[in-house]
Amino acid sequence: MNKPYPDDSMALHTDLYQINMAQTYWQDGIHDRKAVFDIYFRKLPFGNGYGVFAGLERIIDYLQGFEFSKSDIAYLRDELHYPEAFLDYLADLRFTGNIRSMIEGELVFANEPIVRIEAPLAQAQLIETALLNIINFQTLIATKAARIMEVLDDGVAMEFGSRRAQEMDAGVWGARAAVIGGFGATSNTRAGKMFNIPVAGTHAHSLVQAYKNEYIAFHKYAQTHKDCTFLVDTYDTLRSGVPTAIKVAKELGDRINFVGIRIDSGDLAYLSKEARKMLDEAGFTNTKIVASNDLDEYTIMNLKAQGAKIDSWGIGTKLITGYDQPALGAVYKMVSIENEAGEMEDTIKISGNPEKVTTPGLKRVYRIINRENHKSEGDYIALESENPKEEERLKMFHPVHTYISKFVTNFEAKDLHQDIFSDGKLVYEKPSLQEIQGYVKENLSLLWHEYRRSLNPEEYPVDLSPNCWNNKIELIDSIKKKIKDSLNAKA
Amino acid sequence: MNKPYPDDSMALHTDLYQINMAQTYWQDGIHDRKAVFDIYFRKLPFGNGYGVFAGLERIIDYLQGFEFSKSDIAYLRDELHYPEAFLDYLADLRFTGNIRSMIEGELVFANEPIVRIEAPLAQAQLIETALLNIINFQTLIATKAARIMEVLDDGVAMEFGSRRAQEMDAGVWGARAAVIGGFGATSNTRAGKMFNIPVAGTHAHSLVQAYKNEYIAFHKYAQTHKDCTFLVDTYDTLRSGVPTAIKVAKELGDRINFVGIRIDSGDLAYLSKEARKMLDEAGFTNTKIVASNDLDEYTIMNLKAQGAKIDSWGIGTKLITGYDQPALGAVYKMVSIENEAGEMEDTIKISGNPEKVTTPGLKRVYRIINRENHKSEGDYIALESENPKEEERLKMFHPVHTYISKFVTNFEAKDLHQDIFSDGKLVYEKPSLQEIQGYVKENLSLLWHEYRRSLNPEEYPVDLSPNCWNNKIELIDSIKKKIKDSLNAKA
Repeated sequence: MNKPYPDDSMALHTDLYQINMAQTYWQDGIHDRKAVFDIYFRKLPFGNGYGVFAGLERIIDYLQGFEFSKSDIAYLRDELHYPEAFLDYLADLRFTGNIRSMIEGELVFANEPIVRIEAPLAQAQLIETALLNIINFQTLIATKAARIMEVLDDGVAMEFGSRRAQEMDAGVWGARAAVIGGFGATSNTRAGKMFNIPVAGTHAHSLVQAYKNEYIAFHKYAQTHKDCTFLVDTYDTLRSGVPTAIKVAKELGDRINFVGIRIDSGDLAYLSKEARKMLDEAGFTNTKIVASNDLDEYTIMNLKAQGAKIDSWGIGTKLITGYDQPALGAVYKMVSIENEAGEMEDTIKISGNPEKVTTPGLKRVYRIINRENHKSEGDYIALESENPKEEERLKMFHPVHTYISKFVTNFEAKDLHQDIFSDGKLVYEKPSLQEIQGYVKENLSLLWHEYRRSLNPEEYPVDLSPNCWNNKIELIDSIKKKIKDSLNAKA
Repeated sequence: MNKPYPDDSMALHTDLYQINMAQTYWQDGIHDRKAVFDIYFRKLPFGNGYGVFAGLERIIDYLQGFEFSKSDIAYLRDELHYPEAFLDYLADLRFTGNIRSMIEGELVFANEPIVRIEAPLAQAQLIETALLNIINFQTLIATKAARIMEVLDDGVAMEFGSRRAQEMDAGVWGARAAVIGGFGATSNTRAGKMFNIPVAGTHAHSLVQAYKNEYIAFHKYAQTHKDCTFLVDTYDTLRSGVPTAIKVAKELGDRINFVGIRIDSGDLAYLSKEARKMLDEAGFTNTKIVASNDLDEYTIMNLKAQGAKIDSWGIGTKLITGYDQPALGAVYKMVSIENEAGEMEDTIKISGNPEKVTTPGLKRVYRIINRENHKSEGDYIALESENPKEEERLKMFHPVHTYISKFVTNFEAKDLHQDIFSDGKLVYEKPSLQEIQGYVKENLSLLWHEYRRSLNPEEYPVDLSPNCWNNKIELIDSIKKKIKDSLNAKA
């Protein structure tokens, strides 16, 4: 690519206000105070009962490479006029903090910390935008993919969305997220190369147009490809495409594997049933039918209900953009900060919108797994100082409707966070994409069907420990008191 | 960034089937036959009355840099097992075709060719995916931005969406597209540097949390920033944030410019009106109010109708993802191809979905501008051989409902395509982003209000010339006859 800046760096991929705040902290000498931020979202996307976390691998790359380039510094100097001493500080800056995080493929729910950043204040601020940018997209697509897999049963799903993706990064990282969610392949060869994903695809309508004739086009294609899936809807699926595909396959016999036909338009239910009959009558009972054309979990469920004979699904736009809800709203909120005396103090953001009030403090998230049925009872957010693994009996209660509560015994408390960075050093070994995909399946087996169904799933419990809840309420009260006192002082 | 492939190239950012087809063409010796493809979409996004084309600059970069890297070729060899001679061909491949295209900032409508690619068949095929990927996203966002600007009147709009963008490319290229559509600034500093866009932003809630006190936080911020916009909703907008901002501004007097306050949550209509009163009473009548929080053209129109006192709008998620329709469906269709005799032959794709039938032939798009009122009468798609500029009187008729027609006289026919690449060489000089933004405004002045309004705009006429229409109908008839003949032959 012809880039105006060959040293384009991702450190500058941040919001201006992060740099402004870093400057204030640096000028004031508090830029290296330890701060703790949580990343979480407030609502699951697509009305789904669970989310699938993705994005950690990209975050690791980003943090390991975090460094303002020469042209970044020149831009900040020449165009934005930051002072030279501050620019010197930025030029030398590397990430030196700690990251504890869920790993990719973890199931994640609303209002629980996915990633916990403990880092020097200015650093933690500068990396916020990129971390959210990465997590919001990749988690969204992994979740959408898993949601589609729930309706597929044993069908095969392929990611075909590059041309409709929101620019190039979304094409490749979206393909990877789709595989995390359970997809078997992508059409994007760059994604295939970058992430070792199986790639899939045969030919387009333009091949038939180039030869102006399906019969010739299929024959020509077969000369370079032993495994043949013929696209049959260029002119007329049932009157021309399918009969021609069958004719060519018969003529070529063992010289090809007549793997499949693909239908990309029209009434997929009707066409696939008729095409199946024609293939079966011709003896091609093992030839598969691939369908594509604006598919998602709803159309797939409908097609299956109509008895469509589709073996393999090419899914593009609706997956790669998270079409029915194209943004996950993960946020990055400060929960604790070092004070002048070097002690950590918890901090909160209050809001006119109650769901925007943060949960203060250094926290851990545990998945509470019933040892008898191996199903999850819910997630339990506790303060760092607590250890629910040592408890015999856990009280879990709804953090908004606190009267909803239950006691759990005979459980395993699985700490959902792992150490990823320690003092800026990567201490985590990245798993393969295939391992991540397997981990999702393993995790899903812990969930009751009621949490997994696509339509109106039950709400999975995410509860605060009594200590965590009390800590939050006390902090709200103390802030409200301060505001009241200051108003009284003015009056 | 730590990339596993330092020579990551965009040539591989394509669908596998493009490479498969290229292989078939190459094996058959027709890979260098000239082929013509059109890029167009079938439906305007967001129910808008027009689209704003963006993406050409990125396409130019992509085509100039088009080259399979060493690791690309190694991947295609080792993992996908393409034959060595074909890989040699790919390794040497550069783009050598012609591109005629609308320029960025052009208004674009459904079913008219935005970009016309004339290139050796295999090349034209390989670049399809990336071109669509780029155009679909950037045109979507430029259109959404223009749509938002239509409701803003003289307000200022800033792009704040990086954290919710669909991965990093979408963040920066989306910011650029927003500026094309009329936005004044972005918060993304990397986009600011890459594209020379004004950057905007002040501080976040975390600044207040870091100091645990708005009064101290605002004072500290003012020590590093002369122009101060204070975020006032960390604890309580009207009882704490606004009064504290006013207090700090009074104390600092001339030492700062109290440019604005920002409200990011709560009832923006009520809060902005109350805040305006408080600022005015304190004498800060020039201090602006900036609002953000899930804004789009609908919420902005509502807030304005309620008399909200908002001067400047920070717009994130709903813009950067094209939230209510996150994909534009631009397609890439072959319209003509060289035959064995070296002559061009027009080609068509027929479909069970009538709107998916293509319009064959080498075409040009003209905007028919009335010389008397300087308004556009519609767009006119003609064959390459025609020249409506020389016509005195033009018959324009609806390509589906052909009884809808009108005659136009005293018009200027503006050719909407420019030569961008000629035999692989760039022959177009890229304008500045500011020029592109100005070009959009100029273009919009040609449109009657009825085509510009957000809700239920009139359908802007996009008509085929009689020759173009006849050419299409003849080709449909000839293909239908061929299918019928072949069915009769079998019977």
